[in-house]
Amino acid sequence: MKKKVNAAILIIGNEILSGRTQDKNTVFISNWLNSNCGISVNEVRIIPDIEKIIIKNIRLLSKKFNYVFTTGGIGPTHDDITAQSISKAFKLKYEYHPEAFKILENYYGRIRFNDGRKKMAKMPKGAKLIYNPSSAAPGFIIKNVLSLPGVPSILNSMIDNCKKYLIKGLKVKSKTINLYTVESNIAKELGLIQKKYKKFLAIGSYPFFRLGKIGVAIVLRSTSLPKLKNANKEIMRLIKLKKIQVLNLN
Amino acid sequence: MKKKVNAAILIIGNEILSGRTQDKNTVFISNWLNSNCGISVNEVRIIPDIEKIIIKNIRLLSKKFNYVFTTGGIGPTHDDITAQSISKAFKLKYEYHPEAFKILENYYGRIRFNDGRKKMAKMPKGAKLIYNPSSAAPGFIIKNVLSLPGVPSILNSMIDNCKKYLIKGLKVKSKTINLYTVESNIAKELGLIQKKYKKFLAIGSYPFFRLGKIGVAIVLRSTSLPKLKNANKEIMRLIKLKKIQVLNLN
Repeated sequence: MKKKVNAAILIIGNEILSGRTQDKNTVFISNWLNSNCGISVNEVRIIPDIEKIIIKNIRLLSKKFNYVFTTGGIGPTHDDITAQSISKAFKLKYEYHPEAFKILENYYGRIRFNDGRKKMAKMPKGAKLIYNPSSAAPGFIIKNVLSLPGVPSILNSMIDNCKKYLIKGLKVKSKTINLYTVESNIAKELGLIQKKYKKFLAIGSYPFFRLGKIGVAIVLRSTSLPKLKNANKEIMRLIKLKKIQVLNLN
Repeated sequence: MKKKVNAAILIIGNEILSGRTQDKNTVFISNWLNSNCGISVNEVRIIPDIEKIIIKNIRLLSKKFNYVFTTGGIGPTHDDITAQSISKAFKLKYEYHPEAFKILENYYGRIRFNDGRKKMAKMPKGAKLIYNPSSAAPGFIIKNVLSLPGVPSILNSMIDNCKKYLIKGLKVKSKTINLYTVESNIAKELGLIQKKYKKFLAIGSYPFFRLGKIGVAIVLRSTSLPKLKNANKEIMRLIKLKKIQVLNLN
């Protein structure tokens, strides 16, 4: 029987921390993991390109979660230190991966295969490759850590190649109910329903503004479809009782 | 003399972790902190709406960094548990803040000031208010933790009211050079320049794609303007030598 499988995402990069670049990988990886593998992301950290900080986080998160996905820092420049930091975290040699070396040598041609490019073939000893259909330089998996690049378009093109390394878990199903009301109008009753389904279901309540009107999105999330349906029924009953306008159901 | 001041951001919310909602607060807070207060964000964590996890992170991050900014979880519903969790983290009473209570009572009127809305006036004992010009419900600061709402438009309207509580630090200045080249063409020389300025400057290298051409953005970041200018000169010399096309300078 499938069980709950979780993951953490470790975003490595000064450009995200400084606010220069908007992280787009969290949303993408989290959605992909849940819909394709039934894996829930339970924590995300954004950290700078500093070796000892990367090492500390890799050790900690790889113990705490079933999988760790890193993004960023596997390119050819001096600030790309993810692969060597992961090697140090696991006390493994940081060396050329023969297949990665061949892939890159083929891609660039022998003459243009300079030191910077060769660096992208260096990984922790024993790593397995995550192929890259868009720009050749592969990511890798070592133990339960999967290393992907930071550029979203490249990461997106590679993610399906992670699938074969992952144990599938229970998929979280969700149901969203959009209402034209304010949160505090339903807060009390919603709290009681959440209490009742405490073990099986998480109910989120998120205010929104649409076309000048205030609304609330109620999001139910559970690995059990029957519990989801029952809680949904109770909420629909509450909405009817309070004569709240439903915007749409999806 | 000003010194370096740092901060962490703690994003609290299942909707961000699940990939349902794109976090926009990290970019905004990080940019605002650096340009208005000279404070650098050194770590970001995204965590679920679970009390013991919030408590653990508040304790840890408030010890490790000069300031902690939390976003999310201060609304009226059952999943808004940030204020009570921070109270527990610091072993403080969780109680009505008299001024926050008055603000909200005034805003809603006595009759519509129900339990859900009253909850938004509950804070750790001794908290000071961060006023909210757009939807009344205030944020708060207790010790070095500043609590803001998750909705970006509301957070953005409140952020200037954090300023009076913050010690100003050294502003990080940055310079970006956009080049039509590939990273590995300049990786080696750029690494040497970074080594030379190790103590004073961080050089980042970020590939981009624009109008079908491949480019690299070189970003220099430093609290020292003279060092920034010197490193910039060296990089411009390198670019000239390699006959690389500069896209624009900003």
